[in-house]
Amino acid sequence: MLGAVPRLRGREGSRRLSIATQLDHRPAEANALDALTRLCRADLEAVNRLIVEHMQSKVPLIPQLAGHIVAAGGKRLRPLLTLAAARMCGHAGTRHLALAATVEFIHTATLLHDDVVDDSDLRRGRDTAKVLWGNEASVLVGDFLFSRAFQLMVRDGDLRVLEILSGAAAVIAEGEVGQLITTNDIATDEDAYLDVIRGKTAALFAAACQVGAVVAGRPRHEEAALKAFGESLGICFQLIDDTLDYSARQADLGKTIGDDFREGKATLPVVLAVARADDDERAFWRRTIEELDQRDGDLEQAIALMHRHEALEETIARARAYGDTARQALETFPPGAHRDALLDVVEFCIERAY
Amino acid sequence: MLGAVPRLRGREGSRRLSIATQLDHRPAEANALDALTRLCRADLEAVNRLIVEHMQSKVPLIPQLAGHIVAAGGKRLRPLLTLAAARMCGHAGTRHLALAATVEFIHTATLLHDDVVDDSDLRRGRDTAKVLWGNEASVLVGDFLFSRAFQLMVRDGDLRVLEILSGAAAVIAEGEVGQLITTNDIATDEDAYLDVIRGKTAALFAAACQVGAVVAGRPRHEEAALKAFGESLGICFQLIDDTLDYSARQADLGKTIGDDFREGKATLPVVLAVARADDDERAFWRRTIEELDQRDGDLEQAIALMHRHEALEETIARARAYGDTARQALETFPPGAHRDALLDVVEFCIERAY
Repeated sequence: MLGAVPRLRGREGSRRLSIATQLDHRPAEANALDALTRLCRADLEAVNRLIVEHMQSKVPLIPQLAGHIVAAGGKRLRPLLTLAAARMCGHAGTRHLALAATVEFIHTATLLHDDVVDDSDLRRGRDTAKVLWGNEASVLVGDFLFSRAFQLMVRDGDLRVLEILSGAAAVIAEGEVGQLITTNDIATDEDAYLDVIRGKTAALFAAACQVGAVVAGRPRHEEAALKAFGESLGICFQLIDDTLDYSARQADLGKTIGDDFREGKATLPVVLAVARADDDERAFWRRTIEELDQRDGDLEQAIALMHRHEALEETIARARAYGDTARQALETFPPGAHRDALLDVVEFCIERAY
Repeated sequence: MLGAVPRLRGREGSRRLSIATQLDHRPAEANALDALTRLCRADLEAVNRLIVEHMQSKVPLIPQLAGHIVAAGGKRLRPLLTLAAARMCGHAGTRHLALAATVEFIHTATLLHDDVVDDSDLRRGRDTAKVLWGNEASVLVGDFLFSRAFQLMVRDGDLRVLEILSGAAAVIAEGEVGQLITTNDIATDEDAYLDVIRGKTAALFAAACQVGAVVAGRPRHEEAALKAFGESLGICFQLIDDTLDYSARQADLGKTIGDDFREGKATLPVVLAVARADDDERAFWRRTIEELDQRDGDLEQAIALMHRHEALEETIARARAYGDTARQALETFPPGAHRDALLDVVEFCIERAY
């Protein structure tokens, strides 16, 4: 057994864990994602039905645990990218629905494993699956969802799609391992950190967008443009996420502030603050991030140092620059409602910082 | 962080963890697997090269950790099944090599996650990856190997193969979750337990054999026969494994006795002993397996109860029966060296008990 996590198992477990798997289609707050969600509502509802259908198993714990995280009211950002990209590219069929569900399954599997790796107790303001069912179940149900994702894409049967999504899965895992290595290492520089998030976050954004072009039968340069859009958008998204961990705004999202700090993650705000640190400050970062010797007031001190060196502001500026690159990549495509909605996603990612 | 597992990370980690990735082709002892290994030696060497090649990554921790488990001198039983099945079916090409490597990657990913879930410190007499690198790295490198497996099979490009192997991966995960649920539950009956091992062990044996027929372009009934062979063989293999955990023979394999007992796993020897228990004995099983309240001498007492009720002997008898079913499934195929070698694998699985 892993640590002191409570385990609910067997008959006792299944009796106590009847979690509703009804899906909430509405994002929690009005934002720049609304246009996209409205535009793709029918498709997204079909995707949600596919998700519920394919997370079923004769082993009841699987839909219980998967339902908990799948139904947790996520924004479905990644599948929305697939849906909108496919429609923008002129796809008129329904193949993109299963692929959007595939993308969400890969994402969900990653979240389950992330929560184990990061030892997170809360996600989107609710207990994580690992708190409710234990680390073991989270690892194994993650594996199940990952396998289901592959089954779904194999059923689609397009080798190009399979190549893109299986490649993305490998790059995501590489990024996650990279994150593990840079954690507790204040020698991590900006390039190394960007490599990490290009893998752990941007690869799935990129693949989610790219397969939209593939199902629509568009030429390779349009595939490449959508991939580039997704990659820059994913980096933008992650950099803003990194600033949120040091911002009061985070509390509104139901997350505790300072999760990354307590884990000793060398995210960009830390990397930039360390790069500009004097000797005393460097000793502070070494103690808190490398040695994880953290005391009352250290998080506040970290935030103060980030403000002193404009590390958060600069991280947001970097995110904006990636957002601009993402927008430019969409210029390949003719104007229209779907392109506008995808452009809005960039704004959505950035406005979370405010 | 998960429990008290030492974590080696960052520069310190990579300095201390230069593990050789050279592969040991020879099984540790002379046995009924020798004929198969000899017959497929050239193919197996090619598979080992593919394994080393495809576990590479720009993130050095990945080949280090993967190399540790891949090079640990496993028998390569599952890829050998693919190699021999393909050759027995008349396949003259090389496609089966990458698929055999795929099968081994899926198996290795499963082992990495199993060791985290079971909290195992030793595998094949060596420290497990989770002891050396921590649970987090084991989870994430497992994910990487699983993704690589999919990339390898996508590269092969046969949708039937993809369907079989992605289906097996989902069934494996279901079986693993099923094992988690039956753990600490002495109400688990024989059928429920067989369902668990049909998933967690037999599904990959079955798929490994079945794809041999697919690459050889054989008709569906031969695919089905090889699948049936693999499934029965896998159940036979797992049941013998279950008895080894309560046998002195286990120590010879570099494993500690009683791992399953300490975890409270309701394996078949336990299920049979519980079914024949009197009230006192039932109280013993409830305390040790369900409540995990274990004291000095409990493992010895468990073994004594198993002997009293012939639970180990009967588990071996069940394994023999599955072995017979496996042998019968091969009667579909003409006699020859590869069929003989596959028949020997049944004997290999059973003779481990003695």
